[in-house]
Amino acid sequence: MVSRPFDLLNDALGKEALIILKAGRSVRGVLLAFDVHMNLVVDDAELTEQDGTVKKLGRILIRGDTVVIVAPSP
Amino acid sequence: MVSRPFDLLNDALGKEALIILKAGRSVRGVLLAFDVHMNLVVDDAELTEQDGTVKKLGRILIRGDTVVIVAPSP
Amino acid sequence: MVSRPFDLLNDALGKEALIILKAGRSVRGVLLAFDVHMNLVVDDAELTEQDGTVKKLGRILIRGDTVVIVAPSP
Amino acid sequence: MVSRPFDLLNDALGKEALIILKAGRSVRGVLLAFDVHMNLVVDDAELTEQDGTVKKLGRILIRGDTVVIVAPSP
Amino acid sequence: MVSRPFDLLNDALGKEALIILKAGRSVRGVLLAFDVHMNLVVDDAELTEQDGTVKKLGRILIRGDTVVIVAPSP
Amino acid sequence: MVSRPFDLLNDALGKEALIILKAGRSVRGVLLAFDVHMNLVVDDAELTEQDGTVKKLGRILIRGDTVVIVAPSP
Amino acid sequence: MVSRPFDLLNDALGKEALIILKAGRSVRGVLLAFDVHMNLVVDDAELTEQDGTVKKLGRILIRGDTVVIVAPSP
Repeated sequence: MVSRPFDLLNDALGKEALIILKAGRSVRGVLLAFDVHMNLVVDDAELTEQDGTVKKLGRILIRGDTVVIVAPSP
Repeated sequence: MVSRPFDLLNDALGKEALIILKAGRSVRGVLLAFDVHMNLVVDDAELTEQDGTVKKLGRILIRGDTVVIVAPSP
Repeated sequence: MVSRPFDLLNDALGKEALIILKAGRSVRGVLLAFDVHMNLVVDDAELTEQDGTVKKLGRILIRGDTVVIVAPSP
Repeated sequence: MVSRPFDLLNDALGKEALIILKAGRSVRGVLLAFDVHMNLVVDDAELTEQDGTVKKLGRILIRGDTVVIVAPSP
Repeated sequence: MVSRPFDLLNDALGKEALIILKAGRSVRGVLLAFDVHMNLVVDDAELTEQDGTVKKLGRILIRGDTVVIVAPSP
Repeated sequence: MVSRPFDLLNDALGKEALIILKAGRSVRGVLLAFDVHMNLVVDDAELTEQDGTVKKLGRILIRGDTVVIVAPSP
Repeated sequence: MVSRPFDLLNDALGKEALIILKAGRSVRGVLLAFDVHMNLVVDDAELTEQDGTVKKLGRILIRGDTVVIVAPSP
């Protein structure tokens, strides 16, 4: 059971997740770290731009205020 | 009777809700958790994009500052 | 006489109001609760989208930072 | 002489003002109240939408962060 | 010599200035007052809208978070 | 060596810089002052609008939250 | 292993990185400094505008709130 929203991020550490960002971007990769601002570190990150182009970016930092949804893989 | 806005979220825990987000997105699912920033955890989440496409995302975290309206099912 | 802006919200509790939101949305319903962030609970809420479509949403929470104008019915 | 910006709002209480809002809206009416966030109460408010349509809204609350300009009638 | 940004506003009191705002607006007038939020009072204000239309607004309050540039007349 | 980001602004005082702003604007001029909010004073400022038009504005204040990049001339 | 998001920035000091900004811009260069607001100093910076044009800017300061993703080169 998740009792606080950030518990979901904690449970997702080391697992694959889809992260939907503002402005039509999304990132798929393995969640490695997060902080209270929802800044995220994602490994093996694959960025999909609004126009559908995909870029492999390796290990990245995502700024928290651009995050809309974090969806860990089940 | 609801005396404070967050009471509505508390009463909605474990129930289905429609969550309208900025930029034309909405999510339907079961509300599992929330915090003071209105960050939400939603289970069995179904995301509808602005263009009408629907994605099943499972259990997700929604960042509070992207929320416009939370409408629990009656 | 209204001496502080939030007095208007207090006087509007239990009455119908039109709430104009950012991005061309508006809600009509009965104001049930508010807090210092202008988060609002509205009952019998009818949401009008920018394109004119109307949805009946029941009792909802509106996030304060999406509010532009609150106009209680006279 | 106005020595602080909010003095202009104080001097405008009870007088007609034009209030220009973000996203192409404006309101004309009598300023009744304001607070430090620039939240305003306006009476006999007439809202002009970006497309030029005008709505009479009576006594309204305008959220401060949507205000661009307050222009009291001379 | 200007050692802090707000010194420029202080030196500009009583003088004409061009104030460029977000969303393509600008105001020309005499700067009468400012505060730490960069809220400004401008006298004999002439507002130019994005489409080039000009409105004479008299003495106005400009909300600080809509300001982009303040350019006092030399 | 620059050990903190604001050291770059300090080193740039009195030198020409290109300042890229939100919404497609940029300013070229001599950096005279800055504060912790990244509010900047620029002398001999030349503003380039999104459509390419250039305006000479003299000594100006740029509001920090509109700044994207500060690039001092080498 | 990265245990906190800013550890990624610390590990990236002195290395090349791709920095994706809001509004379709990106910068490639060597990360020299950062602070808690995610303000960044980048050396040998190459800015790519939304329309694909590239500008060499030398050593620049990027304001933190315009950052979306920081992707250090592997």
